[in-house]
Amino acid sequence: MRHQPTVGVVGGGQLARMLAEAASPLGVHLRVLAAPGDEGAAEVVPDLVPGEPDDPVALRRLGESVDVLTIDHENVDFGTLAQLESEGLAVRPSPFTLGFADKAVQRRELARAGLPVPRFEVVDPSAAGSVERATAFAEAQGGEVVAKASRGGYDGRAVWMLGRDELRDFVERHEGAPLVLEPRLALDSEVAVLVARRPSGEMVTWPVLETVQVDGMCDEVVFPSGVGPGLDREAAEVASAVAEVCGAVGVVAVELFVVGGRVLVNEIAPRVHNTGHLTIEGSRTSQFEQHLRAILDWPLGPTGMRSAAVAMANVVGAGPGDPRSRQTEALEAVPEAHLHLYGKSVRPGRKVGHVTTLGPDRAEVRRRAKEAAGLLGGTGVGAPQEWDAEGRSKP
Amino acid sequence: MRHQPTVGVVGGGQLARMLAEAASPLGVHLRVLAAPGDEGAAEVVPDLVPGEPDDPVALRRLGESVDVLTIDHENVDFGTLAQLESEGLAVRPSPFTLGFADKAVQRRELARAGLPVPRFEVVDPSAAGSVERATAFAEAQGGEVVAKASRGGYDGRAVWMLGRDELRDFVERHEGAPLVLEPRLALDSEVAVLVARRPSGEMVTWPVLETVQVDGMCDEVVFPSGVGPGLDREAAEVASAVAEVCGAVGVVAVELFVVGGRVLVNEIAPRVHNTGHLTIEGSRTSQFEQHLRAILDWPLGPTGMRSAAVAMANVVGAGPGDPRSRQTEALEAVPEAHLHLYGKSVRPGRKVGHVTTLGPDRAEVRRRAKEAAGLLGGTGVGAPQEWDAEGRSKP
Repeated sequence: MRHQPTVGVVGGGQLARMLAEAASPLGVHLRVLAAPGDEGAAEVVPDLVPGEPDDPVALRRLGESVDVLTIDHENVDFGTLAQLESEGLAVRPSPFTLGFADKAVQRRELARAGLPVPRFEVVDPSAAGSVERATAFAEAQGGEVVAKASRGGYDGRAVWMLGRDELRDFVERHEGAPLVLEPRLALDSEVAVLVARRPSGEMVTWPVLETVQVDGMCDEVVFPSGVGPGLDREAAEVASAVAEVCGAVGVVAVELFVVGGRVLVNEIAPRVHNTGHLTIEGSRTSQFEQHLRAILDWPLGPTGMRSAAVAMANVVGAGPGDPRSRQTEALEAVPEAHLHLYGKSVRPGRKVGHVTTLGPDRAEVRRRAKEAAGLLGGTGVGAPQEWDAEGRSKP
Repeated sequence: MRHQPTVGVVGGGQLARMLAEAASPLGVHLRVLAAPGDEGAAEVVPDLVPGEPDDPVALRRLGESVDVLTIDHENVDFGTLAQLESEGLAVRPSPFTLGFADKAVQRRELARAGLPVPRFEVVDPSAAGSVERATAFAEAQGGEVVAKASRGGYDGRAVWMLGRDELRDFVERHEGAPLVLEPRLALDSEVAVLVARRPSGEMVTWPVLETVQVDGMCDEVVFPSGVGPGLDREAAEVASAVAEVCGAVGVVAVELFVVGGRVLVNEIAPRVHNTGHLTIEGSRTSQFEQHLRAILDWPLGPTGMRSAAVAMANVVGAGPGDPRSRQTEALEAVPEAHLHLYGKSVRPGRKVGHVTTLGPDRAEVRRRAKEAAGLLGGTGVGAPQEWDAEGRSKP
């Protein structure tokens, strides 16, 4: 290892930007492979290497110049990563773990390991008999299903609610990655657990968080989870088992459904994740610092929270103007807000930042984060969800 | 103002680096004027403009390309700053405030404003009668005095303890900036108050901190101050008055002596300062974020502390090797430590980083910070000061 550890990051979005913010105080050098369209990291990372994440030459050049290679997103050329790993480079997450970014792989492997997942069927539309398998599964669920593209979906994209009459047609016309079909579940709530794991297998989890989705996109994250100590414990145990099954090194985010008093794994992201942004100020160790510590095989930090309640609200672009000209309004209304703006150009529905608030009261921190995020996003005081006295969103 | 606020910083040391770490989440763009020898900011600031801080052309070029101009250090060409200010540029701190970086100006102006300062005499060795004035002052103090260069000293440099027999010779041979002479005081302790002030005069102070000096250089900073609520209040009031007298905009650090149950202003730094580094994790708003908010005329953030006790210990270069290869050792011993390495090359006695720890117990956070800083600095477990049960250093 050089006199100063150097971490290579494939992709130059907001996760790379926040990794850079964490790397600077640690004395870790960051080198980022950024494609021309990437926004977020370029403004704050001097050592930017231009290149596409699926360009084997660019990946190899980056890999050979760093101590550890990690990712900002999963749309990377896995073949080159596997080749680099076989030559001895520390690729963290590994290509094996990155395979779990595929929803079909997730469901199959976690079910095989005995972990709780929703009932599911994987359908490859290009294979024979797929329409029949899809309709048979749907009938067993009462006719209605949720279909998800196994790869390439995020923020509620590539997810479809399908009725009995639509499914056959949908599967026949669908092209591309296989589909994962699931029953439409009546969710009590959704929670997430961040896990960090070292190459040795040493692991820590952060306290369980509630996640609030709007149109399938993460809108808010809140601590405490509100599901109670029993389900918190269950969620943390399941998440730790998931991290082991997928051989995670670094941070892995495990999103879970709470249905009928139990948890089911919904989705895994083998990297730092939107649900963990509130750890930056809310926890004794942020997910970004912990990810760097884990992939560098340094001792992990404590994961306790700094406050009785913590909330994060995403800033979603809306209306004219740039959030980076609206900090005054947001801080006038919510001076204690921790603003995070990613330097991304505004497009409708695009996450361009987030806000975190800490305080004694769950409902209050949630309201304050949402207010500041709404003011930054240009939607006025935000369009807060309805919530009950505990600050949990009403169904 | 542009769609994104741009702050220019004169000087590229660790303060510019930590300003950059705070600017990134806020969506504030930083442009840094760095001299060839500057270390710290270059590694993490993409928008680096090469140039000397006393080069009027470079200063003007920076000033004309930003919304607000601020400083990493005071060794700047004040004339050009004054010219830029007169043309309408927001120079914060202003040249007037920067004048208070001169110890002779500090003493005179604060005494004139009725604020408590040590007894003093300003002696310009090049002026007639200076030796006589110096010896007369020394006799009135019992013979022994402390002499400080009014400009250019830091970290205990350009400070001399002079006995009766040495003073005459010293003043006769001294060249350069005038000297400030003071009695050698029997200090109970030393404290510091960070103040942030907006252009409108709106002000906040952080809780009072104890500072522990070793060989005239800040070694540790601890919260709470340990001097009790009465002196805490007095120190905060004096510091606020100091910020007003010097017309500060942004953060100003006020260091005070505690002598015989009262406070005396020792020194002012009209900028972010080593004594405030523990606010990064220890306070609800860090001094670096607050400085940016104040100079941009944004609403200020709350300054309460996040923990019952907070300690900061400086990492001082010693022994072979680079602290940026010793994070594992430090985090193995103190996993909760917040490491800050500045990317500066190691020279004996040079501050190259700091460590902050939070916890319930003052003595314990202090011990832990010192341990981690010692391991990073390469001096083993550090050479902690002796302290009593309250964690205050023994005289």
